[in-house]
Amino acid sequence: MDIQQLIQELRQENQTKIVMLVADGLGGLPRDPGGPTELEAAATPNLDALAKENVCGLMIPVLPGITPGSGPGHLGLFGYDPLKYQIGRGVLEALGVDFALTANDVAARGNFCTVNDEGIITDRRAGRIPSSVGVRLVEKLKSIHLEGAELFLQHVKDYRFVAILRGEGLGGNVTDTDPGTNGKHPLVPVAENPDSESTAGLWREFIRQAAELLKDEHPANMLTLRGIAKRPDIPTMEEVYGLRCLAIAVYPMYRGLARLVGMTVLGEVHDTEEQLQALRDNWSAFDFFFIHYKFTDSSGEDGNFAEKVRHTEIVDSMIPPILALQPDVLIVTGDHCTPSKLKGHSWHPIPVVLASRSCRPDRAEKFSEAECLQGGLGQFESRFLMPLALAHAGRLKKFGA
Amino acid sequence: MDIQQLIQELRQENQTKIVMLVADGLGGLPRDPGGPTELEAAATPNLDALAKENVCGLMIPVLPGITPGSGPGHLGLFGYDPLKYQIGRGVLEALGVDFALTANDVAARGNFCTVNDEGIITDRRAGRIPSSVGVRLVEKLKSIHLEGAELFLQHVKDYRFVAILRGEGLGGNVTDTDPGTNGKHPLVPVAENPDSESTAGLWREFIRQAAELLKDEHPANMLTLRGIAKRPDIPTMEEVYGLRCLAIAVYPMYRGLARLVGMTVLGEVHDTEEQLQALRDNWSAFDFFFIHYKFTDSSGEDGNFAEKVRHTEIVDSMIPPILALQPDVLIVTGDHCTPSKLKGHSWHPIPVVLASRSCRPDRAEKFSEAECLQGGLGQFESRFLMPLALAHAGRLKKFGA
Repeated sequence: MDIQQLIQELRQENQTKIVMLVADGLGGLPRDPGGPTELEAAATPNLDALAKENVCGLMIPVLPGITPGSGPGHLGLFGYDPLKYQIGRGVLEALGVDFALTANDVAARGNFCTVNDEGIITDRRAGRIPSSVGVRLVEKLKSIHLEGAELFLQHVKDYRFVAILRGEGLGGNVTDTDPGTNGKHPLVPVAENPDSESTAGLWREFIRQAAELLKDEHPANMLTLRGIAKRPDIPTMEEVYGLRCLAIAVYPMYRGLARLVGMTVLGEVHDTEEQLQALRDNWSAFDFFFIHYKFTDSSGEDGNFAEKVRHTEIVDSMIPPILALQPDVLIVTGDHCTPSKLKGHSWHPIPVVLASRSCRPDRAEKFSEAECLQGGLGQFESRFLMPLALAHAGRLKKFGA
Repeated sequence: MDIQQLIQELRQENQTKIVMLVADGLGGLPRDPGGPTELEAAATPNLDALAKENVCGLMIPVLPGITPGSGPGHLGLFGYDPLKYQIGRGVLEALGVDFALTANDVAARGNFCTVNDEGIITDRRAGRIPSSVGVRLVEKLKSIHLEGAELFLQHVKDYRFVAILRGEGLGGNVTDTDPGTNGKHPLVPVAENPDSESTAGLWREFIRQAAELLKDEHPANMLTLRGIAKRPDIPTMEEVYGLRCLAIAVYPMYRGLARLVGMTVLGEVHDTEEQLQALRDNWSAFDFFFIHYKFTDSSGEDGNFAEKVRHTEIVDSMIPPILALQPDVLIVTGDHCTPSKLKGHSWHPIPVVLASRSCRPDRAEKFSEAECLQGGLGQFESRFLMPLALAHAGRLKKFGA
């Protein structure tokens, strides 16, 4: 039995509030041997106090050694097995531009490219055309008409866009048209199962019309499609946990991931001040609050140790205003680690602190990777965080008599 | 989804080198209450330095409480689920005499025994005949001819030998002929599934001819067969990880286990000096090196605490020459514990140290069972060691976007 099924049987309603503050990419590595990690270098008095008084641990985002992207990282946090619910590249791209995907949609990531007179790709990124050009070309493609499906197009950045087909009975298993290297023709999209036959035909027609519309452009006279996919058929957090969930995220990707699991998504917040105000404003209307902070990740990706330290301190400053609302459960963690030393996501276990009135004290004296090793939660897969949150919120009945 | 499938999707090539030094049976128990374990009693300055500067943990060889044999112990180390890939006794016996089993082979362990005039077994080990006699009898059995299969026979030790049938379409599910106790007739080998019907017939014919050849011998006038099995259908380490793997083991059993997962196996090394020289000689031609040291296990099996301490110190002395090659990832661990106090394999978690540039510091200050409890790798199943090794070697792409 899946733990989410078990929770659906055991869950019970009450008035508790759960806050999950996700510092994206939290947790790192020392820059120099013997030195501190970003989290250890940061002054985090509020997180340290939380850690000392409550319970800490380390979370394995997927499985040992596996580095997750943002999609699987967040699915784990929300209690979904990231190996069971896989998010296609096209879907993630659509989520990233705040497109509200329905169950009837098939999304693809599109790239403008350059082809020569024989139709062979000479530049898979069309000379990295600027966004101003990309936007114009996407507008041009909107004149494409397809029989049997609605078409949505949205520019992403530079030479990248998202294309979405909406219709009854579309299938999401269609191969890429990007050959992966210059010097080849774009591939013909092919269905990988019978349910996707008609959809593959629609994409072929889309490409035919697009080629016609783009043929006199330069350098972006053609396009390729990748990661064609439907969104996973995933139960909502309200269905699984009985929680009314609100996402308060500045960046569209994280709003999109929250929307994927059925959270209500706040449209416009621009900084932590607005996020905290939104939390206060919506406190009575929801049970679960996902607050996302991006820059602990982006500074790590940039390899900027000092900036990651600074952003960690900003996360710390968000704790007192959250505690002022007296949440029953407050969790602070990340979706994966982004050590500035590695300039990217990593597989290392993520520090986590959980605060509630039912925490058993442990040996963690402050909030750091090494102290979390002394934590009472031990090391566990991220997907078990939500069951722990529900338990500490008194929202799970006893299993069996 | 199985983690090995996931790794096949995520793996990427690079120039890194991974060394796994396996001290068989590493990890033990105090001889006396309050005393040190073998590992704590040993002077291991090199392992201690590795542990202090890198990351440690404890590995559960199969599942908590389960004591593995050498087969499952090593399969776990190589990243294979030992519960999914089971190695029959006959297969292990064949591996142990360096027999290169093919997918068309069915192997059985054979025992010479003594039967009385009624054919009832009076001694299941034929008075423990010496190897000189065993070798002669095995030679005698080589005159057996079977229709539809090739027969290979190899003496192991004393009254024990291996018998292998090779042919198209043979099945590995045939029951033992050893009744497990004196005072009974040898059992007739029976197929446990339709695919093994013809194979059971071949073994019956083998036994018929063997009984005829042995009838005037004494005390070994009959034989029994046990653990009839085909080798598991197992993907190679190169298929799963994309690693060119070399096994450098003195004892045939471990060469056999490495061969089972497709490693290249060095034929003739006799001691640690030759093993280290082989490592140097083959450094450029392989990506992964499995070095096996036997005597930490055999001294434990003998119940000889002092000898196990001494052999642990020999393992320690192998570290500097390995580090001189600057491996990207160096792992030192065991396939299971062999506490000399228990004179046998045990279920206790195995100390492990992993050294690389992407290790997160932990609280382990030296290499011992208790210090490894402070390790950043926590406690985890052995089969996750390879994913961790690949991650630290930069050989795994991100999962999902």
